[in-house]
Amino acid sequence: MEWINKQNVLIVGLGLMGGSYAKALKRIGCRVTAIDRSEDTIKFAVENNIINEGTWKNEEVAKFVKEADCIILALYPNAAIDWVKENVGNIREGIRITDVTGVKSCIVYEIQDILGDKAEFIAAHPMAGKETSGVESADDRIFRDANYIVVPTAKNTEEAILWCENLGQILGFNKVSVLSPEEHDEMIAYVSQLTHCIAVSLMTCKDNEHLKDYTGDSFRDLTRIARINENMWSELFHVNKEPLLKEMDLFINEITELRNLIAQDDTEAIKDKMRLSTKRRSKFNNK
Amino acid sequence: MEWINKQNVLIVGLGLMGGSYAKALKRIGCRVTAIDRSEDTIKFAVENNIINEGTWKNEEVAKFVKEADCIILALYPNAAIDWVKENVGNIREGIRITDVTGVKSCIVYEIQDILGDKAEFIAAHPMAGKETSGVESADDRIFRDANYIVVPTAKNTEEAILWCENLGQILGFNKVSVLSPEEHDEMIAYVSQLTHCIAVSLMTCKDNEHLKDYTGDSFRDLTRIARINENMWSELFHVNKEPLLKEMDLFINEITELRNLIAQDDTEAIKDKMRLSTKRRSKFNNK
Repeated sequence: MEWINKQNVLIVGLGLMGGSYAKALKRIGCRVTAIDRSEDTIKFAVENNIINEGTWKNEEVAKFVKEADCIILALYPNAAIDWVKENVGNIREGIRITDVTGVKSCIVYEIQDILGDKAEFIAAHPMAGKETSGVESADDRIFRDANYIVVPTAKNTEEAILWCENLGQILGFNKVSVLSPEEHDEMIAYVSQLTHCIAVSLMTCKDNEHLKDYTGDSFRDLTRIARINENMWSELFHVNKEPLLKEMDLFINEITELRNLIAQDDTEAIKDKMRLSTKRRSKFNNK
Repeated sequence: MEWINKQNVLIVGLGLMGGSYAKALKRIGCRVTAIDRSEDTIKFAVENNIINEGTWKNEEVAKFVKEADCIILALYPNAAIDWVKENVGNIREGIRITDVTGVKSCIVYEIQDILGDKAEFIAAHPMAGKETSGVESADDRIFRDANYIVVPTAKNTEEAILWCENLGQILGFNKVSVLSPEEHDEMIAYVSQLTHCIAVSLMTCKDNEHLKDYTGDSFRDLTRIARINENMWSELFHVNKEPLLKEMDLFINEITELRNLIAQDDTEAIKDKMRLSTKRRSKFNNK
């Protein structure tokens, strides 16, 4: 349970997720430091006791990296790879590094290659979020009903996997599981990226402003995530392109089949699909 | 404001919607009667003071119809037409009849034709619901945040339109509006029927039971309505087939376009779609 010891945790990128990690880890007694490009972000986080100390200045980064007992990368996928490349020289020997990125195959192998034997990168995906971003929105209560997935490769040690599972528990996640990078990326293409593609397409397929007085809960539910951070999501789609295209094709084929059954008045086949849908959905909890 | 007078309101079909109307109307002082095929339903509704009186017996229907000062059809579309055909002989001259059906062109003209000059049918769509059905789930609080749409034809009188708008206000709906049957059916194909087709297809396109530990809020939001009453919805899709197919084609084309942009790495065009989506969604309230 080394997380409970008073260690220096460095968070790289202090947005919604980095800030929420910081709050949870500071509360259990870690000394939390942070690096962010924004002066306002670091100042806000220090003033509000979200971190102990931090910097936005390039010339101070090396000092914070050298002091870190472990590092949490809370950056977009490509930025995470670039950061490790630039800072590998200052990372202490033998420490553990984890991340919060929503895609895995595209970054985990590359970061492990860059680090070599110097430090161990063990990937994780905290499946939590909000429609608002930035450290001002940081709130570790978003972890309570959410899932946390540890995503090891063959290069990871048992100790690092346990350490990372333990981090998920300490942060307060409802469930902690382990998947391979490939299993993770297929799953996330279906349950998260495809759903965002659907919400965006439902919103953009028709000029709908005049309909806002007529929408019910179903339309609002299906489009809640249609307010989308275009920089983050276009990058996530790009780096997980092959799994996402596979899931999109499954879905497009399925809704096209339903469309054709409706066109042909094949009521029994339509009811079969609805019964399957109802049966499957009832297996999911209904939060 | 004749709704406040103590009049006999007959509700035909005492499910979730009929029962919720009954509760609201009884509270404001109407005498509420009901016809339903189920003995249990009528007994439950009388015992729980949801209605004053009701019957499940064919031989008693005529008596209830003859006593009604107005009638609310809370049946599936085809059943509503059949009921009017069978009971037109017993309907009192000059009364008003309304409904709760989710599709309009396919029933409103036919019911008006059957009634001729005997009584005036003014259609309405209360856009409220729940995932549970039956009179046991009846609850007029479902109207509070919901929209109520009056759907007149050229045959309707100003008085009947006002009477029907007034009913929506009395039931406690958040907003009451007026649309033509054709406008209504296009709107409902987009905001309600298409969304249900999407939710069902997302659930049926992939064997997903093993994913239930990994789903986040977005997947749960998009599939909440995938638990679906297959008898009601297959009938709604059938009777509103042409508008629904048009909206499904718009959506399928749009998500196929997004798929192709992702395949081609056209990041700027993907971001444009996301920005449009975000802009449009922000115009909708975020309940």
